[in-house]
Amino acid sequence: MKTVILIGALGKMGQAALTGLSNHKVITAGRSGNVDHIIDITNEQSIRDLYKNVGHFDAVVNTVGFCEYAPFTEMTETQWMTTVMSKMMGQINLVRIGQEYIADGGSFTLVSGILNTKPIPFAIADATTSGAIDTFVKCVSLEMPKKTRINVVNPTVLAEAWDVYGEMMPGFQPVPGALVGKAFERSVDGFINGEVIFVDA
Amino acid sequence: MKTVILIGALGKMGQAALTGLSNHKVITAGRSGNVDHIIDITNEQSIRDLYKNVGHFDAVVNTVGFCEYAPFTEMTETQWMTTVMSKMMGQINLVRIGQEYIADGGSFTLVSGILNTKPIPFAIADATTSGAIDTFVKCVSLEMPKKTRINVVNPTVLAEAWDVYGEMMPGFQPVPGALVGKAFERSVDGFINGEVIFVDA
Repeated sequence: MKTVILIGALGKMGQAALTGLSNHKVITAGRSGNVDHIIDITNEQSIRDLYKNVGHFDAVVNTVGFCEYAPFTEMTETQWMTTVMSKMMGQINLVRIGQEYIADGGSFTLVSGILNTKPIPFAIADATTSGAIDTFVKCVSLEMPKKTRINVVNPTVLAEAWDVYGEMMPGFQPVPGALVGKAFERSVDGFINGEVIFVDA
Repeated sequence: MKTVILIGALGKMGQAALTGLSNHKVITAGRSGNVDHIIDITNEQSIRDLYKNVGHFDAVVNTVGFCEYAPFTEMTETQWMTTVMSKMMGQINLVRIGQEYIADGGSFTLVSGILNTKPIPFAIADATTSGAIDTFVKCVSLEMPKKTRINVVNPTVLAEAWDVYGEMMPGFQPVPGALVGKAFERSVDGFINGEVIFVDA
């Protein structure tokens, strides 16, 4: 049994990840609500406080990253930076700071999203930052300290979120959260490293 | 003959690009030195001023993007953000603002770099932002306005820069700048769109 910090535990992606973590002690974290720890991944001190407050942990599973959606020609610098500082730098900082605190042999699992390989309108900032995170994981895995591993789950839309995103995503086949949970489980419990784990139908 | 704005004209990559632009009227731009226009791609107003001051143009070729180099565990938030705001957001902003000013049917050509597919130590920020730019170009090409095109040249190290970078890049085969110039030429003078043009030996 590992101690796993699950960030975004109350969201739909967090709930999907949770289905794959049933063998572990899960410490929940999120921006608000009924979680063990409050965290804002865009704030370095908040990230550091989370790790310090948890103490010993073997794995970090992140399921959050805020994105703005707009046509490219209308997307503002502020919308770009909001997305970059959350989905991209927020996740990079979870690893950058987390590697100081995580147990030897631990693992990080990040989340990107299918829109960098299957683009749709309005999602250029989401796609670009997903491409950045997929690349980051593949490359940084070669220099992670303390025998830690890192992977990223790149899922298509969740069946549980289809009512929200379905209209934006014609021709996409949603997948059940439990299937995405398997990807998180394979990252946490396996020995893979530097992988982009695509979950698509 | 097209009017091409070449950003970073005095650098080694700019000189490589220039070898592929001999059929065109080239307007040079850069951070300093003997260029037609001074530009700082990390400054939105500087980008806008460049386009306004040039007036009519058919193509933008960017060959710059500053990166910090350090081991991942030692790279600071400031080093990350310096890289993100230049190589990634600087280039995105060149396109975001440039699409307002460029002639119908024009083209943008950005630059990334081989380290996102062939990682080396110290280059995680370079690799991550190259991955972001390659993804950005592939996805945004589907929604560029005014029949404009966009591509990115992803070169290995230049023979002309081997004395600077060679020690960091054991086992890499440098390519002559003139070969990289062909890639820029193919982007500007062809009809390809949304391509990552790899130039490797």
